[in-house]
Amino acid sequence: MSEPWRPDAATAAFIELDHDRTRRRGYPEAVYCEGKTPGQVSAAARAIKASGATTLFTRAGPAHTEAVLSVLPDARHDEDARMLAWPPEPPAPRGGRVLVVAAGTSDFGVAREAQLAAVYLGRSADLVTDVGIAGLHRILARLDQLRAARAIVVVAGMDGALPGLVAGLVSAPVIAVPTSVGYGAAFGGLAALLTMLNSCAPGVAVVNIDNGYGAGHLAAQIAAPA
Amino acid sequence: MSEPWRPDAATAAFIELDHDRTRRRGYPEAVYCEGKTPGQVSAAARAIKASGATTLFTRAGPAHTEAVLSVLPDARHDEDARMLAWPPEPPAPRGGRVLVVAAGTSDFGVAREAQLAAVYLGRSADLVTDVGIAGLHRILARLDQLRAARAIVVVAGMDGALPGLVAGLVSAPVIAVPTSVGYGAAFGGLAALLTMLNSCAPGVAVVNIDNGYGAGHLAAQIAAPA
Amino acid sequence: MSEPWRPDAATAAFIELDHDRTRRRGYPEAVYCEGKTPGQVSAAARAIKASGATTLFTRAGPAHTEAVLSVLPDARHDEDARMLAWPPEPPAPRGGRVLVVAAGTSDFGVAREAQLAAVYLGRSADLVTDVGIAGLHRILARLDQLRAARAIVVVAGMDGALPGLVAGLVSAPVIAVPTSVGYGAAFGGLAALLTMLNSCAPGVAVVNIDNGYGAGHLAAQIAAPA
Amino acid sequence: MSEPWRPDAATAAFIELDHDRTRRRGYPEAVYCEGKTPGQVSAAARAIKASGATTLFTRAGPAHTEAVLSVLPDARHDEDARMLAWPPEPPAPRGGRVLVVAAGTSDFGVAREAQLAAVYLGRSADLVTDVGIAGLHRILARLDQLRAARAIVVVAGMDGALPGLVAGLVSAPVIAVPTSVGYGAAFGGLAALLTMLNSCAPGVAVVNIDNGYGAGHLAAQIAAPA
Amino acid sequence: MSEPWRPDAATAAFIELDHDRTRRRGYPEAVYCEGKTPGQVSAAARAIKASGATTLFTRAGPAHTEAVLSVLPDARHDEDARMLAWPPEPPAPRGGRVLVVAAGTSDFGVAREAQLAAVYLGRSADLVTDVGIAGLHRILARLDQLRAARAIVVVAGMDGALPGLVAGLVSAPVIAVPTSVGYGAAFGGLAALLTMLNSCAPGVAVVNIDNGYGAGHLAAQIAAPA
Amino acid sequence: MSEPWRPDAATAAFIELDHDRTRRRGYPEAVYCEGKTPGQVSAAARAIKASGATTLFTRAGPAHTEAVLSVLPDARHDEDARMLAWPPEPPAPRGGRVLVVAAGTSDFGVAREAQLAAVYLGRSADLVTDVGIAGLHRILARLDQLRAARAIVVVAGMDGALPGLVAGLVSAPVIAVPTSVGYGAAFGGLAALLTMLNSCAPGVAVVNIDNGYGAGHLAAQIAAPA
Amino acid sequence: MSEPWRPDAATAAFIELDHDRTRRRGYPEAVYCEGKTPGQVSAAARAIKASGATTLFTRAGPAHTEAVLSVLPDARHDEDARMLAWPPEPPAPRGGRVLVVAAGTSDFGVAREAQLAAVYLGRSADLVTDVGIAGLHRILARLDQLRAARAIVVVAGMDGALPGLVAGLVSAPVIAVPTSVGYGAAFGGLAALLTMLNSCAPGVAVVNIDNGYGAGHLAAQIAAPA
Amino acid sequence: MSEPWRPDAATAAFIELDHDRTRRRGYPEAVYCEGKTPGQVSAAARAIKASGATTLFTRAGPAHTEAVLSVLPDARHDEDARMLAWPPEPPAPRGGRVLVVAAGTSDFGVAREAQLAAVYLGRSADLVTDVGIAGLHRILARLDQLRAARAIVVVAGMDGALPGLVAGLVSAPVIAVPTSVGYGAAFGGLAALLTMLNSCAPGVAVVNIDNGYGAGHLAAQIAAPA
Repeated sequence: MSEPWRPDAATAAFIELDHDRTRRRGYPEAVYCEGKTPGQVSAAARAIKASGATTLFTRAGPAHTEAVLSVLPDARHDEDARMLAWPPEPPAPRGGRVLVVAAGTSDFGVAREAQLAAVYLGRSADLVTDVGIAGLHRILARLDQLRAARAIVVVAGMDGALPGLVAGLVSAPVIAVPTSVGYGAAFGGLAALLTMLNSCAPGVAVVNIDNGYGAGHLAAQIAAPA
Repeated sequence: MSEPWRPDAATAAFIELDHDRTRRRGYPEAVYCEGKTPGQVSAAARAIKASGATTLFTRAGPAHTEAVLSVLPDARHDEDARMLAWPPEPPAPRGGRVLVVAAGTSDFGVAREAQLAAVYLGRSADLVTDVGIAGLHRILARLDQLRAARAIVVVAGMDGALPGLVAGLVSAPVIAVPTSVGYGAAFGGLAALLTMLNSCAPGVAVVNIDNGYGAGHLAAQIAAPA
Repeated sequence: MSEPWRPDAATAAFIELDHDRTRRRGYPEAVYCEGKTPGQVSAAARAIKASGATTLFTRAGPAHTEAVLSVLPDARHDEDARMLAWPPEPPAPRGGRVLVVAAGTSDFGVAREAQLAAVYLGRSADLVTDVGIAGLHRILARLDQLRAARAIVVVAGMDGALPGLVAGLVSAPVIAVPTSVGYGAAFGGLAALLTMLNSCAPGVAVVNIDNGYGAGHLAAQIAAPA
Repeated sequence: MSEPWRPDAATAAFIELDHDRTRRRGYPEAVYCEGKTPGQVSAAARAIKASGATTLFTRAGPAHTEAVLSVLPDARHDEDARMLAWPPEPPAPRGGRVLVVAAGTSDFGVAREAQLAAVYLGRSADLVTDVGIAGLHRILARLDQLRAARAIVVVAGMDGALPGLVAGLVSAPVIAVPTSVGYGAAFGGLAALLTMLNSCAPGVAVVNIDNGYGAGHLAAQIAAPA
Repeated sequence: MSEPWRPDAATAAFIELDHDRTRRRGYPEAVYCEGKTPGQVSAAARAIKASGATTLFTRAGPAHTEAVLSVLPDARHDEDARMLAWPPEPPAPRGGRVLVVAAGTSDFGVAREAQLAAVYLGRSADLVTDVGIAGLHRILARLDQLRAARAIVVVAGMDGALPGLVAGLVSAPVIAVPTSVGYGAAFGGLAALLTMLNSCAPGVAVVNIDNGYGAGHLAAQIAAPA
Repeated sequence: MSEPWRPDAATAAFIELDHDRTRRRGYPEAVYCEGKTPGQVSAAARAIKASGATTLFTRAGPAHTEAVLSVLPDARHDEDARMLAWPPEPPAPRGGRVLVVAAGTSDFGVAREAQLAAVYLGRSADLVTDVGIAGLHRILARLDQLRAARAIVVVAGMDGALPGLVAGLVSAPVIAVPTSVGYGAAFGGLAALLTMLNSCAPGVAVVNIDNGYGAGHLAAQIAAPA
Repeated sequence: MSEPWRPDAATAAFIELDHDRTRRRGYPEAVYCEGKTPGQVSAAARAIKASGATTLFTRAGPAHTEAVLSVLPDARHDEDARMLAWPPEPPAPRGGRVLVVAAGTSDFGVAREAQLAAVYLGRSADLVTDVGIAGLHRILARLDQLRAARAIVVVAGMDGALPGLVAGLVSAPVIAVPTSVGYGAAFGGLAALLTMLNSCAPGVAVVNIDNGYGAGHLAAQIAAPA
Repeated sequence: MSEPWRPDAATAAFIELDHDRTRRRGYPEAVYCEGKTPGQVSAAARAIKASGATTLFTRAGPAHTEAVLSVLPDARHDEDARMLAWPPEPPAPRGGRVLVVAAGTSDFGVAREAQLAAVYLGRSADLVTDVGIAGLHRILARLDQLRAARAIVVVAGMDGALPGLVAGLVSAPVIAVPTSVGYGAAFGGLAALLTMLNSCAPGVAVVNIDNGYGAGHLAAQIAAPA
């Protein structure tokens, strides 16, 4: 470390954008904003602008959003999903349908993130909310819609019971997203996570708490055209 | 998702109020405010106003309270319980008596939430506070009152020992509510929760940490008229 | 301790049976066998025989069972519930009906313990099994039976989702019993316990993992005659 | 409960096999043996024999296996996977290819369970073992095979790092199965589970610890013919 | 390591008995047997015999006991406490009285270990059992005995509520010992441990789960003559 | 609940000060401020003023402090310990010496709380800081002071190793106080708590994380005059 | 405690700087700022200035930084690493090379802290960032650099998989630093910590979450000249 | 999977021994036996015999040992360390000295595993036992030996305090190994693990609970000749 006191030089090297990713894996890159400084995010945005690569910015707070928009002013921003997309137009949808289901109103943001991720990865994706198991008639009224999907994302906090119930009603794979919605013994989503991992019905797999992006990405992969 | 960038349209569908609930289960609905935006809460209030259904708003912070009162100005607000009720008058009490007991002063808000929930679900409900086990004479002085209740809610943080002690003194069922009162190895109410689940005396069941509403609801069900 | 090396004298004092309990709380005593030596259990049985008090022996393994039967040969033994009752005849049922619901076949023993506890505390109690949420039609087919009960015990392991679903369908209180059935992230019943504590539907309270006796006891208290 | 002491009558009702399941969800039923008595398993086997429904018996120990084979002597038994299948012949494979990858030798049983589940649900499924990240060349040598699969199950214990690495190399969805292989701070598979949930690469979803059956089932659903 | 394959030489050095301990701290040494091989324990016994130092052997299983008795045949063995003492006679009691209180019958072994530890460290120590909080009259009947003690050890499993209750009734320090008695959410004594750490009454300190020896040692220190 | 909407009446009853405590247990009462509103604290202060009882106010934040001082302007306030005492003069010291030892500078506040608690309960108490085990010479230099104490409180965060080391050097009882000082795997004091509970040296008991008051109280009880 | 109300006197004694440390262990002291007041930090700085000892100030927030610079205005401050060094010039590098590798951009601060710690303890240290396992080509491109190091520090959050992968590629020891980067089931770095502890490849040891300083210190010790 | 029912064929492929490892990383391979069947271990032994590669077999139970010795009868077996080595002669020692220190007698097996690992990886390694912090004079008596080592492995269970104390006395890096020795709140080594991760003294890194092999391997890497 010949020049320990020049952080600019040191930080200059810290971002190696993975432009090769689309080619290698078939899906565009995402920049996870949380935990990054606005300066780091705008540096990423500049590199993306230079390369022209399709990119999602996820978990973007107000300062991250401002940083992206100052570099990519035409990026589309969805406040509920805390996501930005550039270029702003999603690709034309191909493959099977993705359905995102949210148990409660408070799960809307995470569900929206899943929906937009699937849309920007090239799928058609609908969103149904407030169909938790406390009022069973609500999810049963959606049976046709559920059975028409090639992949289903189910988002739920608190008891996290909805994914297992949905999986028992359909033949499509269910991606379960526990959310941090709840209090006390919800332990920030841990209760819902464990419920989902222990689902009695087969056909459920789980992503990290509040990881709407990951669930939407996986649903898009499952529903990809053959 | 034909119209990905019109969140208003997307959010328009997010609340399906369960007006059927009173008929189906016999008790009015509650809107859990925590984790919802003020806009979501006022949308719920407008739907409730249109339907005329009796409703409780629980865990309402200042912004939620303002949102409710702007739509339902005659709703009754209890600051300790963080609760609003509409219409403001509770039903005339029927069934057995509910008694809510709080171990310490700091447990008052949760206990008050339990008391009001029971009252608005149609029970007569009293509240006794500051009778923790460190001063045994305090709870023993209430023995007659304890034995007159059809259902008892016991609210306690820290060591959470009070419900087991009460259950050993009465024949009525005890609903235990752990609170997040305490520090260090209280782990946000986990210690009290475990104590209550391991109560040596039978006759104790437990609800989530700080869940005064749920305890009051359950007590009202237990004390319901035959 | 004048005589440290005479454990017989020391152990002679270790059991103070609570014969006063029936009078004080209105329900007979139970001897929790697990963790006691057969000698301790047969000492308890002898004291019970002398007093004539109605008693349940819970969580009785083979050695405990033999110890009880050698003293109280006419005690009734239920192997699934790991329970013995003496005198063998339950009291004539009074009060409301108790319904015990088990999600899966593996939950049968705990559910049976709950049923027998309620029966020996003087209630009429039925048992329904294998109605987990993975096959929703099974529980929905029991709706009339569920709605006829004054108190419902719901026993479930793995995801523990059944109690919340039942609570959304009935007006009676639901006592949820998590079981240690499951593996991996079930963590010995912890997952089911958390699910139940976070139930979206109000009207659920929870007892300790595998605590069928406690749930049956509480249900008997709830369904007690006015 | 008019006849509390006739457990045979009580247990007669405990199994309601879900023969409707294949029609409703499109996949045959499985009988989870762990935690059931051999008697309960053979009762299930008799009901299956009567109905003729295709069924898998999972997590079958020696006594369970004997119970199944005494009723269904032509069932196929795989000792590594602790699984029996009846009728013995899997359906002709349709849809995309499933690939099961196991990090270490000790993960073989769980991986085999996943492979057989997929095969009996109608997929073609291969199994690759001992390609953990400590010797990177081993998994890199399988790149073509990985990229030819429509769904990939990755089974790993200890650090659980393999699924995230695989997901970064392919475009197919990855179903990660943590195993209880390891010691100390592996905490029975918890470490691997958390690693997988926090995978840096999108495209990974997780099932319960040691849940090979669930992973194989999900992979079969993902790779189902359009 | 010039001689890697002569474990005898290697193991010859593994025990450095702390004969200096009595002089330095004023209390004799204890050999904790659990986790040691019988060979290691008998080697320790031989060293003790040579030195003549007063020693307790704690947590001694049958093989450990046999190992000690084969070297020190006159050592006293208490099976409940799993303890051996050599020389067999305790010192004449000095200082204040120690009282050991056990909540339930199943806590007897740990309480006995505490009592014997105090006795062999030179205190007078009594033992009271089966006075848990589910039957409050039992502990209240012991009030005079409690108030006569200079140090009180309270042993309890399950909800662990007894030490906090006792501390509210006396002016002596209370040493609380959680036990692993219980099941489910008792989590091997964790619930009782947390309860005790969160005791509402000041004057309670806690030792490790099932650590009767440590509690008796500490009580003996507290009640030491001035 | 005849008057549900008059919270003043409801809250009027919430404090039942335990003035009888000094007589019953021999030590004055403390008001735990954290989690109470300033209004609740000033109500307590008024009741104390009326009764003239000696009282400590613990865990008092700025608003609590102001509330106390507005009612009891001559109360003494210690900012480090977050404690107020009234009347301001501690009693003349009696009994044995208490020594409070803090491992690091960051543990000073908790240690100070312990010291003041002991002083106001009537003991002479000194405080030694910054003698953690990373620099062993620092604690060894205090050996005479350590050995002169009748009761020692050892306060430590991070690895929490100091109490076990001190207990090996002295014959007095050691009360260990884990603190929430540290980060990462310190888990808010859990690591230090576990270390102390597993201390290899006998003679250590533990209080709740950051519970300086409880430790000082217990030390005062231990060092009380015979 | 003759003068309980003069905190200045009490606090005067609270810092005993370990000036002897460099001599005893061979490395300079560090002042851990987090949890200390600015006043405590500036007192430490004054003592250091008086002694002339080389010192690092770690985990320094803005107020700590200001406190140090007001006393030691020529101290060097690195904002990313939250570290100050005095005297400002690092020693001339000796011994082997240290390489610090960070999986993601968000891990930069912790990695920088490790790098600077090694530099100020006298090693040459380079820093490589954003080479996580989701894009395997990035770390493989650094193979020569990895193999040239005498000690490697690998910093990673989320799944924490990078250290195990690196250890499989090199013969140098790997010091793994889990970071609190991540969300949900990352549990503040716990997931990464467990991953690293369970690394399949030997040659990995782990320090506390976010403990860049400790890792850099250890790397400097490993790479010390013979 | 064309031949699903021929497990022999399937298992034939499950071991890909990493013979390239010695060349790539510079250290021989180890076969971790726990969790493998004796058949899998003897298959590994046969492959090793064919290749002639130096190999350690770790965590070998009696059946594993028999399996190895039947193939490699001249392998050396150490029962305490549960390890076998083949070829039996360790390489001539090179590089710096390794010192393994065990806190208690019960930690001997893990410490022995660390010692032998270092010896078979080419280092000179000594072993010191029973020098825990409860008797400080024991470790202080070894100061010269500690300071002569190039790398120190410290093995401790229960409170796990020894590594931090040793690190404060030496300039060599300390590799800490928590053991599962202890009971109750030791939680199978978790307490010791957390203590070590939070060590106040820098210069400590930690490996998995009971991972003597990993610690010895790392120590050998640290002490490797330049």
